[in-house]
Amino acid sequence: MNKNKIKIGIIGGTGYTGVELLRLLAMHPNAELSVITSRGEAGLPVAEMFPSLRGYIQLAFTDPTTTQAQVDLHACDVVFFATPNGIAMNQARDLLAQGVRVIDLAADFRIRDITEWEKWYGMSHACPDLVAQAIYGLPEFNREQIVKAQLVANPGCYPTAVQLGFMPLLEAGVVDVNNLIADTKSGVSGAGRKAEVHSLFAEAGDNFKAYGVAGHRHLPEIRQGLALIAKKTVGLTFVPHLTPLIRGIHATLYARLNKEVDLQQLFEQRYAQERFVDVLPPGTHPETRSVRGSNQCRIAVHRPQGSDTVVVLSVIDNLVKGAAGQAVQNMNIMFGLAEHIGLEIVPLLP
Amino acid sequence: MNKNKIKIGIIGGTGYTGVELLRLLAMHPNAELSVITSRGEAGLPVAEMFPSLRGYIQLAFTDPTTTQAQVDLHACDVVFFATPNGIAMNQARDLLAQGVRVIDLAADFRIRDITEWEKWYGMSHACPDLVAQAIYGLPEFNREQIVKAQLVANPGCYPTAVQLGFMPLLEAGVVDVNNLIADTKSGVSGAGRKAEVHSLFAEAGDNFKAYGVAGHRHLPEIRQGLALIAKKTVGLTFVPHLTPLIRGIHATLYARLNKEVDLQQLFEQRYAQERFVDVLPPGTHPETRSVRGSNQCRIAVHRPQGSDTVVVLSVIDNLVKGAAGQAVQNMNIMFGLAEHIGLEIVPLLP
Amino acid sequence: MNKNKIKIGIIGGTGYTGVELLRLLAMHPNAELSVITSRGEAGLPVAEMFPSLRGYIQLAFTDPTTTQAQVDLHACDVVFFATPNGIAMNQARDLLAQGVRVIDLAADFRIRDITEWEKWYGMSHACPDLVAQAIYGLPEFNREQIVKAQLVANPGCYPTAVQLGFMPLLEAGVVDVNNLIADTKSGVSGAGRKAEVHSLFAEAGDNFKAYGVAGHRHLPEIRQGLALIAKKTVGLTFVPHLTPLIRGIHATLYARLNKEVDLQQLFEQRYAQERFVDVLPPGTHPETRSVRGSNQCRIAVHRPQGSDTVVVLSVIDNLVKGAAGQAVQNMNIMFGLAEHIGLEIVPLLP
Amino acid sequence: MNKNKIKIGIIGGTGYTGVELLRLLAMHPNAELSVITSRGEAGLPVAEMFPSLRGYIQLAFTDPTTTQAQVDLHACDVVFFATPNGIAMNQARDLLAQGVRVIDLAADFRIRDITEWEKWYGMSHACPDLVAQAIYGLPEFNREQIVKAQLVANPGCYPTAVQLGFMPLLEAGVVDVNNLIADTKSGVSGAGRKAEVHSLFAEAGDNFKAYGVAGHRHLPEIRQGLALIAKKTVGLTFVPHLTPLIRGIHATLYARLNKEVDLQQLFEQRYAQERFVDVLPPGTHPETRSVRGSNQCRIAVHRPQGSDTVVVLSVIDNLVKGAAGQAVQNMNIMFGLAEHIGLEIVPLLP
Repeated sequence: MNKNKIKIGIIGGTGYTGVELLRLLAMHPNAELSVITSRGEAGLPVAEMFPSLRGYIQLAFTDPTTTQAQVDLHACDVVFFATPNGIAMNQARDLLAQGVRVIDLAADFRIRDITEWEKWYGMSHACPDLVAQAIYGLPEFNREQIVKAQLVANPGCYPTAVQLGFMPLLEAGVVDVNNLIADTKSGVSGAGRKAEVHSLFAEAGDNFKAYGVAGHRHLPEIRQGLALIAKKTVGLTFVPHLTPLIRGIHATLYARLNKEVDLQQLFEQRYAQERFVDVLPPGTHPETRSVRGSNQCRIAVHRPQGSDTVVVLSVIDNLVKGAAGQAVQNMNIMFGLAEHIGLEIVPLLP
Repeated sequence: MNKNKIKIGIIGGTGYTGVELLRLLAMHPNAELSVITSRGEAGLPVAEMFPSLRGYIQLAFTDPTTTQAQVDLHACDVVFFATPNGIAMNQARDLLAQGVRVIDLAADFRIRDITEWEKWYGMSHACPDLVAQAIYGLPEFNREQIVKAQLVANPGCYPTAVQLGFMPLLEAGVVDVNNLIADTKSGVSGAGRKAEVHSLFAEAGDNFKAYGVAGHRHLPEIRQGLALIAKKTVGLTFVPHLTPLIRGIHATLYARLNKEVDLQQLFEQRYAQERFVDVLPPGTHPETRSVRGSNQCRIAVHRPQGSDTVVVLSVIDNLVKGAAGQAVQNMNIMFGLAEHIGLEIVPLLP
Repeated sequence: MNKNKIKIGIIGGTGYTGVELLRLLAMHPNAELSVITSRGEAGLPVAEMFPSLRGYIQLAFTDPTTTQAQVDLHACDVVFFATPNGIAMNQARDLLAQGVRVIDLAADFRIRDITEWEKWYGMSHACPDLVAQAIYGLPEFNREQIVKAQLVANPGCYPTAVQLGFMPLLEAGVVDVNNLIADTKSGVSGAGRKAEVHSLFAEAGDNFKAYGVAGHRHLPEIRQGLALIAKKTVGLTFVPHLTPLIRGIHATLYARLNKEVDLQQLFEQRYAQERFVDVLPPGTHPETRSVRGSNQCRIAVHRPQGSDTVVVLSVIDNLVKGAAGQAVQNMNIMFGLAEHIGLEIVPLLP
Repeated sequence: MNKNKIKIGIIGGTGYTGVELLRLLAMHPNAELSVITSRGEAGLPVAEMFPSLRGYIQLAFTDPTTTQAQVDLHACDVVFFATPNGIAMNQARDLLAQGVRVIDLAADFRIRDITEWEKWYGMSHACPDLVAQAIYGLPEFNREQIVKAQLVANPGCYPTAVQLGFMPLLEAGVVDVNNLIADTKSGVSGAGRKAEVHSLFAEAGDNFKAYGVAGHRHLPEIRQGLALIAKKTVGLTFVPHLTPLIRGIHATLYARLNKEVDLQQLFEQRYAQERFVDVLPPGTHPETRSVRGSNQCRIAVHRPQGSDTVVVLSVIDNLVKGAAGQAVQNMNIMFGLAEHIGLEIVPLLP
């Protein structure tokens, strides 16, 4: 047991955000993975389910209902929930009471309006009081609050790409906030490691489609985030699409300028100090693969044909900056580490 | 030689629109493929280059510069140009003079404003007078003119998907035409069968990116088409993206409603008589694979969250309704055949 | 009701072999689709599940347990089972008793040795007597028997590609039958339209693996088929692999020559009269896409470096010649139609 | 300038092995990238061509024909050639004369029989004497020689996967070496970042084919390697295939056992001390993605149905263990570093 290391627990480690957390934490010099639970796979060595982890992760999945698991989790410094929605809200209180910090990669603590949350997630919320105390873990927007947070709501993948893309424009107040459009495209891993027909290779492969145009769960989260950034209510049309990528989100954002501004300079200055937001040179187009496997967000800003419409292109890896990587970034902030520790990963290209 | 058959020539048959024309014409009951030219591959049996055609196409590529090729082409009823831009404008006059009808799958005759064309295509136009007499081959918009056309400019792939998607809204005058947005996604075959690094499997695979945001050649074509449909100038932001599909275009279109209207009914009525435009039920999302290999365009119309923004989803197979299939549809119209002859193809799914 | 048409029922039409049967039968001039059943989707219009069929298939799924479904099925000329293994063996007898011909696309009637079948399929066989009377539907091997068959066991996808590849060698007796190797690669649609983690896009995409090396259900089927062809027991090593294709099987076959022979001539002569087996020129390599969507098998034969090892490359579309297309070919034979009726489909390339 | 760091030059850094070297060296604690040349891209910042390297690589490409480039290269401790075949043989002598160590990722120094090399590579060899002194850089076979090597011939991708798979069997003398079969499958990045039609997304995507069955350049390299391992001439049938992966090689190897042996134990013992060869448990199947982005080779050994045929499954990432990673592994050995330095990368899954 290493005194200098952060003792870490992961609840629900059999999905894509789970294996991605393990990939990152395995190489993190300050992380000590202590326990990882799974109801369905208790006893199975993690590396047997994910052979990519052979040689890096020796742990087996633990049954979370056992006393030992409880003891182990209580002894952690931080616990990540890599579970489906609705799990963390039932288990976080107990951990917090033991002084364990909690980072939820699901949506349980993301939306402050409980009624809104219950409408979109189709269940009663188990702990509205914890929602009020949770910090939304988008470091580029509220890093200071994350430092002291006991409970962090890790942002969704679409919300991360969209908020980082709109942020400079909204903070500077240079666009019409009533007519924002976010046309977003996600790789299939965004749907998780669940056995569902629409995510099959022979269904999602060589195919492109929009989905959830009438309403997607990330809409209220993005709307809330953009309103906090803009300091006023925003009007947003959000259209997600499924594209035959494994990893990657590409957000194409449209807004009407209502003030003249040097867009390139605006974006570069806003993100000058941000390790994980990279503003590309004028006239370029970020590719999703340029961030594959890394915690980077890359952004380019355009004003096509000199019109009033600004077009922002924002890409992330949905499993890293859109999930596990951002969670580790939040952990680093919470524990006073340099933000990039364990996240210095050159993207895999090709 | 069959008197009831249309004698057909294809100039430049080694690209994807060429092989797709061959696939369609091989099964067309009224088509008699007479000659197919290629400077680079003269002498090579077509089916050796494209083994999928073994047993269906016996012809070899002919050198277009030979006297025999000229004689054969002059004897055709119709000649398709499946060539790069800039070829048809130099060769069409000779064919037209012989009474041969011409369908150009490239862009030489699509844009009426010659200066505009020359700006976007980077060359001088060889025959502005022919542009003036060419008919834009979008049957759903100007079928009557196609009937008598000697020279048809077959629309581009993006322009087909975008115009069919916006058409009911613009004809009905229910949206603000100054702020149209077309966020479009294309499969990689849209770039043609050219050896280029950015179209390599290891470059375009598992990757998503926008391109040409500052300006794409299809922008002036779409703008011209939408203006003709709306009967006024339109303001359009056009953002194309490359997605790891082989075939398929998905256009996501945004417009602001300025009049109350039953959108579903508007679209269904507009396309009620159109064999190749299929308006999907309310609340649905067309997939590109639902039109794979077919001449179909499928469209769904949404008004998310009851806002003023209408979202149209329009999908086609870029090589069929976006190229070779629409060309055959135009040929059918020009020769008095039922429009669907040779185009009754059930899409390949999965 | 058309007297010249074959009245057709499909049991279990929600999988990939089901939708593929529908694609083919929709265009078959002698087919009249009469009923299609699904326990899970009764009432749902078929084209709502598979939008590619919009405009071609008007039927809805019927509950197979209703009296009406029974009446409709009994009135059919032929019923296809596109069901999981173990269904047809329980329902075929009733249909056969009514004079309805049956084609089973699953494995219930493929293996003559009941003990062997029960070992590999993990259930008791419900009707061993029907197995004895079933005809194995590989037209290129036993066309004559199919003509009179009441019950056809449609071959598996791997078995089709492997048997067609080895057939000329075994019939001619020119290879050592004790050491045959079939290294086979399948697209993911071969696993069916079942919600299973290993078939997810994010699992099977950008990934290649062998599976079932210790033993795969197609092993006994292939072994039986090769033995019938060779007229003696064979020794076979069969290694299937999963490759990130949607459709397609590529079989790479290895055998030791024990007699000098002109391999190219042997294969060309064997298949000279076969409409659906295409022997490629010497030195070539068939691609899976060259048969995509078609009922074709393409084969090339090599003898690398002049050694004694013959290498046969055999490709099919697993859903067509490996399933639904071969089933329609069998139907054509059973009903005295030309074998290619409804199967003249140019492969989709690219 | 850091005294503890290895000064590194890369010649020809615009291909996939080049960008992969950069990815690995950027994170290597003992590496100092000093110069990278490209004739075609001189002056271009490396990270402009490969945006994945933004923030990690500040260098621009240098024109190799300039005096400065020569000076910089001569000052290096080691120079990697990531060039097409035929370049290193012309430039290595000059570097070696300056005491610079050379690692060639191309094929110039791999084959000892010059006549054989010239036959397969279609050119005269410029420096047969250097071939004689070059060391074949397969650490698991001849690590001791690499330690002192001035010139290392980095193995090809197929040869690495095939030799590591056969090695335990050949060293133990338990198989018939006259009848080895290597059925290998490669991702498309193996063809390099060259603009060629057959590597286009729309050609190689959703497609599977064999190629080079009559003879592939890696055949003589593998044959030579296996003979050195077996200490006798071997008979090998080598069939490469192209599969729609970006990265990854899967070798399926077949041999006839001529001695009883515990295969699992044989493989485990052979590779017990090898950091980069992982023998999987009995009954398993390695996936290419389980090594994606890493220098790992994973191997499983099977004896299906208890026959005499042993089946070995061997996977690597063709750009890492099959190219740049192995080159860095060789560099580590040559400079007395622990072999895994800079190569501790958890594979990217999914």
